[in-house]
Amino acid sequence: MATQPVPVVTAFDWVPDFAKGLVRDLRVRWAYEELSQPYAVEKFGAATPRPDDYVKWQPFEQVPAFRDGDVEIFESGAILLYIAEKHDALLPKDEARRWRAISWLFAGLNSVEPSCMRYFAYTVFNSGKQWTEGATEAVVPLLKQKLKRVTDALGGGDWLAGEFSIADIMMVTVLNSLKETGFVAEFPTLAAYHQRATARPAYQRALAAQLADFDGPPPPGRG
Amino acid sequence: MATQPVPVVTAFDWVPDFAKGLVRDLRVRWAYEELSQPYAVEKFGAATPRPDDYVKWQPFEQVPAFRDGDVEIFESGAILLYIAEKHDALLPKDEARRWRAISWLFAGLNSVEPSCMRYFAYTVFNSGKQWTEGATEAVVPLLKQKLKRVTDALGGGDWLAGEFSIADIMMVTVLNSLKETGFVAEFPTLAAYHQRATARPAYQRALAAQLADFDGPPPPGRG
Repeated sequence: MATQPVPVVTAFDWVPDFAKGLVRDLRVRWAYEELSQPYAVEKFGAATPRPDDYVKWQPFEQVPAFRDGDVEIFESGAILLYIAEKHDALLPKDEARRWRAISWLFAGLNSVEPSCMRYFAYTVFNSGKQWTEGATEAVVPLLKQKLKRVTDALGGGDWLAGEFSIADIMMVTVLNSLKETGFVAEFPTLAAYHQRATARPAYQRALAAQLADFDGPPPPGRG
Repeated sequence: MATQPVPVVTAFDWVPDFAKGLVRDLRVRWAYEELSQPYAVEKFGAATPRPDDYVKWQPFEQVPAFRDGDVEIFESGAILLYIAEKHDALLPKDEARRWRAISWLFAGLNSVEPSCMRYFAYTVFNSGKQWTEGATEAVVPLLKQKLKRVTDALGGGDWLAGEFSIADIMMVTVLNSLKETGFVAEFPTLAAYHQRATARPAYQRALAAQLADFDGPPPPGRG
């Protein structure tokens, strides 16, 4: 009897401290932990570089890429959608709510994350450069406006689409990128949402698994 | 006999010149034109402001929002996916290719558009501010790297997932935001792809419809 291959997600075996908990394979791990389904990890790092043809799997050479049998996917949003469809889970059954959740999945990636990434680019990747002061001042009001919109949409609800879904996996991990800031705490409803989500046992297991996989050597001159 | 309601997409009745052809309802119009399916437009502008409760439909109060019967969607990526699923079109039938197309749909929105939008924010929305010089210098290499990756992925093919799909509608309209730059022209394969896509009659009809809908008065003090 042939065994079904376990889906594979790519990850890093080393990242600098600021990136711990932020690499996007966390989203995929979290989904599988919610479903109590197995997955395998293919790790890259200084000692185990990405294969030469990785670009055919992940055209931007980033993490995560994903494989399930003949299906290869890149982009964490697409992978989450695939997992939800395949397992008929983590999305509401009701059609209107299902599309509300999918709307929020995209909103996390395109309406919220870009402002977070701009802030991150200015304060982490380009830290200390003179121009980042003005750039940061320009993006912070936009970023807070996005957080306010998500807060307003949550209202008194626990989750973005009524029940916990891949939209929440996306939004919460997007908000993780602000962990070194106090921005989320400025919106108590949003902070409670982030707290509620990250307290889930599946999130805790996924995060622990990602952190445990950072067992590779640092690149030369790092660490 | 009850008639099926026509799906509705929201749009603007006036935008400044720099935004013409860039408002994201173009993506939805293009999909319907490819399918030769009707859609209705609900327009907002200076004379017809967004309704007070628009935020419940589009939490970021942007355009487009979409309604088809009981299903309300925001985020152009989610709307494209809905249209493709509903009409069983604009996505490959083969499962592996289908997920390749969906991967590229997300990649357009999250791996390519954010760099384009940063460039746009610096050179249009914040034009003339001193910090934008350094910020622009920092983002241009990232942006060109993204364009190179898309170019490499296209290789000798016509479309991102083998056949024309919603991934191409997304990527081509993302590239539209660079129309005032010479960046796309630096990658002949990418420029040919953009040309091939925008020469499609359905694109031309969608663009003409969007431009024709800019028939409202400018806001006070504009135009």
